Amino acid sequence: MNHPFIAEEIRANGQGFLPGLAIDCVIFGFHQNQLKILLLEYRNTGLFALPGGFVREDEDVNDAARRALVERTGLQDIYLEQFYLFGDQSRHNPAPLRAIMTAKGIEPADSHWLLRRFVTVGYYALVDFTKAVPKADALADSCDWYDLTHLPVLMLDHKTIVQKALETLRVNLDQRQMGLRHLATPLLPETFTMGELQNLYETILGQKLRRTSFQRKMLSLGILERLDKKYSGGAHKAPYLYRFAENAIGSQN
Amino acid sequence: MNHPFIAEEIRANGQGFLPGLAIDCVIFGFHQNQLKILLLEYRNTGLFALPGGFVREDEDVNDAARRALVERTGLQDIYLEQFYLFGDQSRHNPAPLRAIMTAKGIEPADSHWLLRRFVTVGYYALVDFTKAVPKADALADSCDWYDLTHLPVLMLDHKTIVQKALETLRVNLDQRQMGLRHLATPLLPETFTMGELQNLYETILGQKLRRTSFQRKMLSLGILERLDKKYSGGAHKAPYLYRFAENAIGSQN
Repeated sequence: MNHPFIAEEIRANGQGFLPGLAIDCVIFGFHQNQLKILLLEYRNTGLFALPGGFVREDEDVNDAARRALVERTGLQDIYLEQFYLFGDQSRHNPAPLRAIMTAKGIEPADSHWLLRRFVTVGYYALVDFTKAVPKADALADSCDWYDLTHLPVLMLDHKTIVQKALETLRVNLDQRQMGLRHLATPLLPETFTMGELQNLYETILGQKLRRTSFQRKMLSLGILERLDKKYSGGAHKAPYLYRFAENAIGSQN
Repeated sequence: MNHPFIAEEIRANGQGFLPGLAIDCVIFGFHQNQLKILLLEYRNTGLFALPGGFVREDEDVNDAARRALVERTGLQDIYLEQFYLFGDQSRHNPAPLRAIMTAKGIEPADSHWLLRRFVTVGYYALVDFTKAVPKADALADSCDWYDLTHLPVLMLDHKTIVQKALETLRVNLDQRQMGLRHLATPLLPETFTMGELQNLYETILGQKLRRTSFQRKMLSLGILERLDKKYSGGAHKAPYLYRFAENAIGSQN
């Protein structure tokens, strides 16, 4: 599947796939207090893009997104959320895909299905940075993590897609308290200090929070279980470790 | 445009439209403490459906939704929000559209574009019930308001679409305080009592709220302007009238 000349997606007529419909995935990881996303690089073209794919005729759209995530990260059971359909005419530009195919030795006809107008469904996913094993797709040369604060120029409207994904993540983290476990679990180790949880929030929200009110709010949710203190051997007072309580909000999905 | 035999959408090959992509609109109105939505009826078939349409090749997807709203309601500048792409395989069922076309004297070939698998983008809209003038589309016989609590059986997955629209509206009303003006304005008269505002909230949320805490929350938002008392001549104390303050959150959109 990984050799471009036999990838089904590159057949000229798009047979077997829904026409004009793509998916794009903003896959977030958290490492060293940086929010990162996975990007594909197409060498010899200078192009970078979000991982994504197309929807098979015998496949649900959400399943196509899950398939892309498993293929790009090696991880199953990823927290995944559909957030927007990008459908402006202005996003139609055949040049990048033509350049990518040309760089792979394919000379697509003007009628090639990948050069027509596509709408794309945006998904965001949260994955454990330490467990993901990024893997390129049929057309890309590599798939790697990039700091959200230092992204290369992205093709088409992919920067807009990243921005909207981040906005959705922020709203959900801020307002949908029931989703906290799903939002935070893949981004944090199994046990964490209140400071580490606050760091994650601050990084996603892009702003500093007051320590005392953050702690009060988090504890008031009733979904954190306090464990032993974390003894670091340092001069500071050892902080408590926490984890998400079993069954506290287990039925939320 | 309103005669089925000349409607562009019914051409067999779907020329001029994006293939496999539909839009469906859940258009909410509020009247006599009932939340209502607009439905199309296809006589002689027993079928009811959400208003919607297809996307022209030279049109943004969001603009196609706006076009459908203007055509169905006669209103411009409607509050409109895209909320989900419905893309399961299981929603593909050519029978209802075949029945609708047959009832109109059209015998579609099996390859007719409208009988293929479609994904649909769900939008919800809030309109002023008293100002909307519902108008059927090319294939339907009528377009009318139905109480959300007494909907007829809807075709395809349209009931699921209504349910998801209502869930989104509830979350937005509850959490996105900045959107209150946009959410409530088309559903309420220009001036309203606190009781009328609470009624709207209770109807959308499907639950009773405590009067004192509701009033405190609404006033704390700082976007309501208190006007004169509403003198009804009844035995009760006359309640104050309110309206949304100019410029208070005017830049939110």
